[in-house]
Amino acid sequence: MIVVLKPKISRKDELAVLKEIKRLGYKPHVMRGVARTVIGAIGDERKNHTLETLTTFPQVESVMPVQKRFKLVSREAHPSNSTIKLPNGVVIGGDKVVIMAGPCSVESEKQLLTTAHAVAKAGATVLRGGAFKPRTSPYEFQGLGEKGLKLLAKARKETGLAVITELLSEQQAEMVAEYADILQIGARNAQNFQLLIAAAKTGKPVLLKRGLSMKIEEWLLAGEYILANENPNLMFCERGVRTFETYTRNMLDLGAIPILKKESHCPVVIDPSQGAGRADLVTAMCKGSVAMGADALLIEVHPNPAEAWSDGAQQVSLEGFAKLMDELKPFIAAAGRS
Amino acid sequence: MIVVLKPKISRKDELAVLKEIKRLGYKPHVMRGVARTVIGAIGDERKNHTLETLTTFPQVESVMPVQKRFKLVSREAHPSNSTIKLPNGVVIGGDKVVIMAGPCSVESEKQLLTTAHAVAKAGATVLRGGAFKPRTSPYEFQGLGEKGLKLLAKARKETGLAVITELLSEQQAEMVAEYADILQIGARNAQNFQLLIAAAKTGKPVLLKRGLSMKIEEWLLAGEYILANENPNLMFCERGVRTFETYTRNMLDLGAIPILKKESHCPVVIDPSQGAGRADLVTAMCKGSVAMGADALLIEVHPNPAEAWSDGAQQVSLEGFAKLMDELKPFIAAAGRS
Amino acid sequence: MIVVLKPKISRKDELAVLKEIKRLGYKPHVMRGVARTVIGAIGDERKNHTLETLTTFPQVESVMPVQKRFKLVSREAHPSNSTIKLPNGVVIGGDKVVIMAGPCSVESEKQLLTTAHAVAKAGATVLRGGAFKPRTSPYEFQGLGEKGLKLLAKARKETGLAVITELLSEQQAEMVAEYADILQIGARNAQNFQLLIAAAKTGKPVLLKRGLSMKIEEWLLAGEYILANENPNLMFCERGVRTFETYTRNMLDLGAIPILKKESHCPVVIDPSQGAGRADLVTAMCKGSVAMGADALLIEVHPNPAEAWSDGAQQVSLEGFAKLMDELKPFIAAAGRS
Amino acid sequence: MIVVLKPKISRKDELAVLKEIKRLGYKPHVMRGVARTVIGAIGDERKNHTLETLTTFPQVESVMPVQKRFKLVSREAHPSNSTIKLPNGVVIGGDKVVIMAGPCSVESEKQLLTTAHAVAKAGATVLRGGAFKPRTSPYEFQGLGEKGLKLLAKARKETGLAVITELLSEQQAEMVAEYADILQIGARNAQNFQLLIAAAKTGKPVLLKRGLSMKIEEWLLAGEYILANENPNLMFCERGVRTFETYTRNMLDLGAIPILKKESHCPVVIDPSQGAGRADLVTAMCKGSVAMGADALLIEVHPNPAEAWSDGAQQVSLEGFAKLMDELKPFIAAAGRS
Repeated sequence: MIVVLKPKISRKDELAVLKEIKRLGYKPHVMRGVARTVIGAIGDERKNHTLETLTTFPQVESVMPVQKRFKLVSREAHPSNSTIKLPNGVVIGGDKVVIMAGPCSVESEKQLLTTAHAVAKAGATVLRGGAFKPRTSPYEFQGLGEKGLKLLAKARKETGLAVITELLSEQQAEMVAEYADILQIGARNAQNFQLLIAAAKTGKPVLLKRGLSMKIEEWLLAGEYILANENPNLMFCERGVRTFETYTRNMLDLGAIPILKKESHCPVVIDPSQGAGRADLVTAMCKGSVAMGADALLIEVHPNPAEAWSDGAQQVSLEGFAKLMDELKPFIAAAGRS
Repeated sequence: MIVVLKPKISRKDELAVLKEIKRLGYKPHVMRGVARTVIGAIGDERKNHTLETLTTFPQVESVMPVQKRFKLVSREAHPSNSTIKLPNGVVIGGDKVVIMAGPCSVESEKQLLTTAHAVAKAGATVLRGGAFKPRTSPYEFQGLGEKGLKLLAKARKETGLAVITELLSEQQAEMVAEYADILQIGARNAQNFQLLIAAAKTGKPVLLKRGLSMKIEEWLLAGEYILANENPNLMFCERGVRTFETYTRNMLDLGAIPILKKESHCPVVIDPSQGAGRADLVTAMCKGSVAMGADALLIEVHPNPAEAWSDGAQQVSLEGFAKLMDELKPFIAAAGRS
Repeated sequence: MIVVLKPKISRKDELAVLKEIKRLGYKPHVMRGVARTVIGAIGDERKNHTLETLTTFPQVESVMPVQKRFKLVSREAHPSNSTIKLPNGVVIGGDKVVIMAGPCSVESEKQLLTTAHAVAKAGATVLRGGAFKPRTSPYEFQGLGEKGLKLLAKARKETGLAVITELLSEQQAEMVAEYADILQIGARNAQNFQLLIAAAKTGKPVLLKRGLSMKIEEWLLAGEYILANENPNLMFCERGVRTFETYTRNMLDLGAIPILKKESHCPVVIDPSQGAGRADLVTAMCKGSVAMGADALLIEVHPNPAEAWSDGAQQVSLEGFAKLMDELKPFIAAAGRS
Repeated sequence: MIVVLKPKISRKDELAVLKEIKRLGYKPHVMRGVARTVIGAIGDERKNHTLETLTTFPQVESVMPVQKRFKLVSREAHPSNSTIKLPNGVVIGGDKVVIMAGPCSVESEKQLLTTAHAVAKAGATVLRGGAFKPRTSPYEFQGLGEKGLKLLAKARKETGLAVITELLSEQQAEMVAEYADILQIGARNAQNFQLLIAAAKTGKPVLLKRGLSMKIEEWLLAGEYILANENPNLMFCERGVRTFETYTRNMLDLGAIPILKKESHCPVVIDPSQGAGRADLVTAMCKGSVAMGADALLIEVHPNPAEAWSDGAQQVSLEGFAKLMDELKPFIAAAGRS
C-alpha cells in the first residue's frame, strides 16, 4: 500500500502513522518527495488488514492499494485461456463462438420447443430460458418455476441443446442444478455472495452477469467467490451497465471483452439482448461482440415477441434470429473463430 | 399506456397495432396529431400485459406507461405517514429523529459493548452492527456470524438499545430475526427479491437500503415486495449511489428524502457513513439529512476506526460521535423535530 | 404532448389544465383511463411552447413529449446516408472506412512529419493533430497554436493526407478553418453552442464529439446547430462517455453506432483512443467499431508515446498502428466495406 | 508519482523504466514489495511531464499521481475563507447566507421588474436572469440578448439588487461584464477554457457551475483557470450532476459542499432549481444546502412558471419564494449564519 501524508506534518504525526502501519503488519518505507512525504507499506495486502483505515488519521491524505485483489480468476494465476466443456460436447472458450439462444422466460411447452428447434437449426448449441424470473415489481410474472425447468429438460432431450437457466435463490440451488447445464447468476444478484457460494457448490458451470453498475474489479472479485469455492467453471457475461443514457435500457460495455481477456483466463459471454433492451440493435451488437473477442453470445429469441410474458421488446423473432446468424458468419471468420 | 406511431405509416400497419392492443386487453383510443398518430391504450397497466413489447413492431416508435407501478408503498394508498414502533418503545417516522449507531462489524464483546454504551449515552436509541458481512472479496472478514448476533443481544440487554443488523441469506432469515429488532437489507441485495420476501415473512421491521444504481421507482417497487408479503413495517434507507465521482465512495442523494416523502408513506433513513465513505464528511451529511426531513440516521461508530475490521475509513470515533450529536441538535430543532 | 393528471382531481382542476393547454397553442384531447385521466395535446411541439411547465400545476402528474426534437439531422429528413467529400478526394460515409490518424498534439515538425508519413503508408487518409489543446489544468501544455496549424498544412502538402484539428475558440474559427479540412469539436465543447455556430459558419466539415455525459438526443440536437446554420457536412464522433467504471478513462459506447445510423443520416466516426484511454485496448475497439458500422476511425498515433506531451497513455506507436491496420482488414471486409 | 511494475519482470525491463523516469525529470526510488516492485518517482508533478505515459510500457502495471493538481484554489494556498464583495455591499462567503433569485430567462420588463421587487422584498440581495441562454435545441428561445442585459441593469437601479447573468461567448465577455456584477459560467461551458479565461480577464466575480459529470478535482482545476488569470473572485456553484436517476433532471450533490470547503477557500453556492429540475423540491434542497454550509443559494423565481419561456418546471412562484424564505430562516440560524 502507498500512504500519502499531508504537506508539512510534524515528525510526531508522521511517527504515529509509521507505528500504526507496523501494528497492522506492514514494513514502512519512507520517501520524502518535493511536495509531501509518501510511505510505501510493504506486506501482503490480501493477507493483512487494509491500510485504508489510516485515512481517519488527519495527517494522512490518501492511501492507495498496489496489489490486485483478485487471485484465482486472474490471468497471472492461469496464463492460458480456460475452457468449459458441457455435457453435449460444446466447449465454451475454445475456437468456436458458442451461441446460446432462447426465450427470456419459459412460458409453455409449445413456446419453448418451437424456439428450441428453431435456434438449434440456425446454429445455437445452448438453450436459454428463465424458469425463475427476478422481476422489478412483485406484480409481474415470476416464472413457471420447476415446471419451467422440466420443460427445459424436455427441450434438451429433443434437441441436444445444453441448457442455461437462472438461479435466484440459495434454497433452490440443488434443484435448479439438477436440470441445468449452466447456472446463470443475474445482474441484480451479482453481489449476492451467498447465492454465488451456493451456485459454486453445485459444481455446475456458472455464468456470472455483470451487476448494473459493477466495476470490472468488483466483477472479477465476485467471480473469485466461485473459484474460491472450488468450482473452476466460471464465465463472465457482460449485459450492459446503467448510465445516464435513456435511449437504450442499458449501455453495453464491449470494451469489457478485451479487458477481461487481459485480466482473466475465464471465457467471456455477451448478452446483447439485455445490453440493448431493443431487438433492432441486437444484430449490430452481436457483430461487435464477436469482432472484439467474445467467446459466446446469449441471445433472447421468442416466437412472438409482442406477446412475450417478459422483456418482449428485446427478444428477436425466430426469423430474425436465423437472419442474424447468417449475418454474423463473416465476422466470426474474421475473428479467426468458427 | 401511450403508443406513438412512426410518421407516415399505412392504414394497414396502424390497424395491426390496434388489433394487438386489443388482444393484450386494452381499449385503443386514436389521436391524430400534427406530426404523428398517438394511441391511448386504456386499461389497467398493473393487471394487463405491458404494451412495451409493441416496440418490436417496426411501425411503432415508442410506448410510454402512464400509471405508477407501485401501489402499497405509495402515498396514494396511505396518505398519512407510517410509523414503526420498536420493542424498546422507539418510534421511527414520528416526531423524534431516531439515531441508529454502532460499528460496521461486530468484532468482539469489548468493542461492541464499549460502543453501545457510548452511543446510548450520546443519544442513540438503536444499535447497529453487522454479524454477517457482504464483502466484495472472498478474502475479507465475513463477520462473526451467530456469535455476533449474541453479542448484539447482550448489548441490547445492557443498554436498552434496539438492535438493527444485516440479513444476507434467505436461509438465515429466521435466525437473524430472533436476535434483531430491525432487519437490514444491504445495497447489494436491494433487488434480491427472494431475500426481500424471506425478510418480510419474519414479521420484523425491514430497513431497505437503496441499491448502488437503483432508480427511485425501482426502490419503491422493491419495497413493494415487503408490503405485498404482508409486512407493513418498511423503511427506506438512502446510502449513496454510484456515480462517476471518485472523491467519495458514493454520492449521497439527499434529494431522495423529499421525493420519498412525496411518493411514499414509509419512514426515510439516511446512512451518511456509507454515503460518504469518509468519516470527515459524516457530520455535515447528518445536518443536511435532518434539514431535508430524514426520520432517522444510521451512523457507523467505532472505538478505534483505524483498526476496524471493515470500512474503517468511514467510521467515526466515540468522541467524534458525541460531538456530532451535539452539533446536530439545532438542526433537529429547526426541522421541528426532537 | 401527453399530459397525465393525478388520480381523483376535481373537474375544476382539470379545466384549468385544459385552459392552459389551449392558451399555449395546443388542442387538448381528453382520455379517461382506468386509473387516471390523460390529455393528448395536439400541436407542433417544435413550434409551440413546451407543456412541460404544466408540471408546476399540482394536479398534473407528468408531461411526456411525443415528437422528436431534432429535424435536419434526422433520418426522416434525409433517408439516404450523407457523405462528406474532402479536398483530397476522400469520402466519409461512403464505401470505404476512412482512417484518421496522428498525434494527440502537434509537438514538432519532426514528430508530426514522421507520424504523417507512417500513417499514410499504413493506409490512413486523414491526419489528426491538435494545435490548440483543451487541458483540464491550466498548467498543462496548451498546444503550439498557429505554429501547429502550419505544421499540419506542411504535412498535408508532403503526404496528401487531409487534416482534422480541434477548434477551441469562436475567435479562432476562421483562422483554424484556413488550415483544416475538418474542424473537430471536442467533448468538453459539445454543448458550447456559440462555438458550434462559429464552426458551422466556416463552411468546413465538422466532426462533433459526444460530450462526456451527453444523451444521444442531446448530441443529435447539438448537431442540429450545425445543419441549422447551413452547413450540411456534419459527422458524429463517439469517444467514450463517463461512467462509474475506473478501469478505463471512458466507456466507449459502440451501441451508439447503430442508434445514430437509425436516427440520423450523418456519418459516424469512432475515437477508440479517447474511448479507451489505453493504447492496449485500441485495436480491439477498432475491430468492434468497424463491425458495428462505423464510417471512420480517429486514432491517436505517436512516434514515442511515453514522451508525448499529452495523453501518451492512449497513443499507439507507429509500429503498433501498422499492425492494427493489418489486423483490421478482415473486419472491414466482413462489414462489406473497403 | 508511484509507478507499479508487473510481477516477475526482468531486471532489464525494470532498468528501462528507471531510465525513462529519470529522462522525464524524476528521481526514482525502488521498493521491493511482497508481490511486486513499486517505484516512487520523486519530483514536482505539476512542473514535470506526467509519468502516466509509462503505462504504454508493457512491464508497467499502473501509475498513480501523488500530488494534487490544483494550487491557487486550494485551502493549502489560502487557509482562511475567501470572500467576494459586490458593489451593492453584499459579501459572499461571509456570515450571511446570500440569496440570489430571479427568473431563468429575462422575458420582458414587466416580468423582470415584478420578480426583482418581489425577491428583494423577500430577502434576496442578488438578482439572477439569463439574457443569453444556452439551449439544447437551436429551435428554443435563445434569450433577449443585450436588451435583456439592459433590463437587468434597470432592475438593479430600481431595487438595489446586484446582478448575476450568464456569459456564453468569449466575444461577449466585455459587453456582459459591463452590465453584470457576477458572471455566471454554465454547466455546459464548465470546461470551455477559453470562456473561463475571457471571463477571468473582465475582472468581475465569476460563478462557476459544475459540469454535468464533472469530478470535483476537474471542477477545482477549471476554477484554477480563473485564479491563474489573476481574478481572485471565484465561487463554485453545485447545480446537480447527471446520473442514471430519471425522477429528477439532475442529482444535487450536497456532499460537494463540505468537500469544497475542505479542499478550497472559495465560496460555495447551490442552485437547487437546476439541481432538482422540479419546483416542488426546491425548498427542501435549500434547507439541506444551508445546513451543510452553503454560502449562497441561486433560486429560479417566475411570476407565472407555467408560461415561462424556459425551464418553467423548475421555477417557483413569487408566493412560493416568499414562503421558502420564511421556512429557511431557522436553518440559517442553526447553521450559525444570518
